[in-house]
Amino acid sequence: MTEIFLSLIGFGNVGRGVATILLEKAERFKNKYGLKFRVISISDSKATIWDESGIDLREALMVKEAFESLDKWVHQMSPLEVVKEVESDVVIDVTNDMNAWKWHMEAFRHGRHVVTSNKPPLVFHFTELIQEAYMRRANYRFEATVMAGTPIITLLQESLLGDDILRIQGVLNSTTTFILSQMEKGLSFEDALRNAQKLGIAERDPNMDVSGMDAAYKAVILHNVAFYPVSFEEVRVKGIGEISMKDMEEAKKKNKTIRLIAEIRKGEVSVEPKAIGRDSPLALYGTQNVAVIETDLLGKLVIRGPGAGIRETASAVVSDTIKAVREDLEVGAWNM
Amino acid sequence: MTEIFLSLIGFGNVGRGVATILLEKAERFKNKYGLKFRVISISDSKATIWDESGIDLREALMVKEAFESLDKWVHQMSPLEVVKEVESDVVIDVTNDMNAWKWHMEAFRHGRHVVTSNKPPLVFHFTELIQEAYMRRANYRFEATVMAGTPIITLLQESLLGDDILRIQGVLNSTTTFILSQMEKGLSFEDALRNAQKLGIAERDPNMDVSGMDAAYKAVILHNVAFYPVSFEEVRVKGIGEISMKDMEEAKKKNKTIRLIAEIRKGEVSVEPKAIGRDSPLALYGTQNVAVIETDLLGKLVIRGPGAGIRETASAVVSDTIKAVREDLEVGAWNM
Repeated sequence: MTEIFLSLIGFGNVGRGVATILLEKAERFKNKYGLKFRVISISDSKATIWDESGIDLREALMVKEAFESLDKWVHQMSPLEVVKEVESDVVIDVTNDMNAWKWHMEAFRHGRHVVTSNKPPLVFHFTELIQEAYMRRANYRFEATVMAGTPIITLLQESLLGDDILRIQGVLNSTTTFILSQMEKGLSFEDALRNAQKLGIAERDPNMDVSGMDAAYKAVILHNVAFYPVSFEEVRVKGIGEISMKDMEEAKKKNKTIRLIAEIRKGEVSVEPKAIGRDSPLALYGTQNVAVIETDLLGKLVIRGPGAGIRETASAVVSDTIKAVREDLEVGAWNM
Repeated sequence: MTEIFLSLIGFGNVGRGVATILLEKAERFKNKYGLKFRVISISDSKATIWDESGIDLREALMVKEAFESLDKWVHQMSPLEVVKEVESDVVIDVTNDMNAWKWHMEAFRHGRHVVTSNKPPLVFHFTELIQEAYMRRANYRFEATVMAGTPIITLLQESLLGDDILRIQGVLNSTTTFILSQMEKGLSFEDALRNAQKLGIAERDPNMDVSGMDAAYKAVILHNVAFYPVSFEEVRVKGIGEISMKDMEEAKKKNKTIRLIAEIRKGEVSVEPKAIGRDSPLALYGTQNVAVIETDLLGKLVIRGPGAGIRETASAVVSDTIKAVREDLEVGAWNM
């Protein structure tokens, strides 16, 4: 049995999802991987709980539930202080903090692995982060940043190693899929957006989704993994705000539908609404995401799965955590 | 630059596909991975060429083309002798030999990695092979055994590590898909089979495909990777030989179609023809394969891609070869 010390930064939906899975599956992970996870710090936006002997996750979940924050409980410590001072093996960052790349860098400098669902560090600081992780022999895993738990990142990193990727096309944002499919049924953009907000599918500030920025972040991360780091400024982004009922009608006449399509080629990333055939693998409904990967040897590969959801995103974070530490333990490289 | 010595056993379609890719992409693999592959032995069913200084792959491909065998060229050596005596880092077995598991065992005993597209060793000797590989710290990779180059094995090994798999459903054999879709158009089983043979989609002895055995082999391998080794005798297999035009008609009336469906649950593997809705991800046409993976955390994940083809299968063999040796080289675990 190997005991792994974790620092959890972010205790919103995904962070609590991760804590819940670690609780529920503690026995499972001991039996299957010989891994015992001990969460030794949890930080929310206001405070940090820190206990080297292991935090009672059940208690932490209850405190958060009751007080909406951890600050009634203990330390005033910033995430940067946490990654410096808390002696964890893996730092799990499930915040949306734009400056989190600094915590990741600092974690690597202390030889800690980092697992994250937080996109901006991977979009804006990819090169420095990868280099630092490499130099410190730390693992950097970020499956949850794209398509929630659907393992597109791992697939690109671990398979098709002899293939050259020619193109990736994807539907990477499900809020826009929801709005567009409502518009297909005759609703105006405004009404569709309101419905999405009512159902909790769109955020109160829907701009990241509607503008295409969220999909563009994800597309850049896919490009960085499939090819090399690209600058975000080079990405062509067009959102769905200008799609009219007329556009929808015209697409319908041609037996097509409009979706926000990310397209990634070597050195080229774009996100824009496109009319696509109804039998295209890109013609999705609901909260699924899809990517169609085209390579020189294999041809077309389709991977489709959940693109949102707390448990679905936490799935990727937990898988990455196991993967990050499993590599330290491996003797043979084949693992059950 | 790291030089990697390879033994290639099997020089039929897939073997030559692998040789061709290694030739075409030699520069690419040097630049991308710092790997230089030197093939030091090639065995076909009659003979072995062996040259420690590296075989000229262009020449070997020409000799095979001209003489249909390598035995005009050099050694009389069995594959078992090859894995013992030829000092390779990786043994690539692309034969269909039922006894190849003995070569794999012997290769592991000599500390060599094994990459294979050959199913029976993984179906009938999984436990011994995995244990031997583990003890010798050798890698055993077999992506090409299921769904050609579509990376379902790697996906199961490298992602969803915190998830419990509830069920995998798949269409894993494309010959039966071809025959069934011809029957859908009104052809009899016999005529559909004849067409498949004419087009080179079915073998002259189509029994492995038609009986469901090929799909059953693949389903067992998926079970072994997703759960634990299962005995082949426990698999429920029913082929498509008894599907009548009447069955087809009845399915059609319900807006369904019949496909040979593999279903894998923990401890349970079956392969049988089933009527499925036309909008099911399992309702495939052509030579694609698909798997629908259902887990407790993520929900449903669909992976679809080529299930046959020389280049498509060779893609997996080459990717596995890179992956097998890349793990020896890794410093940080993040790899571009």
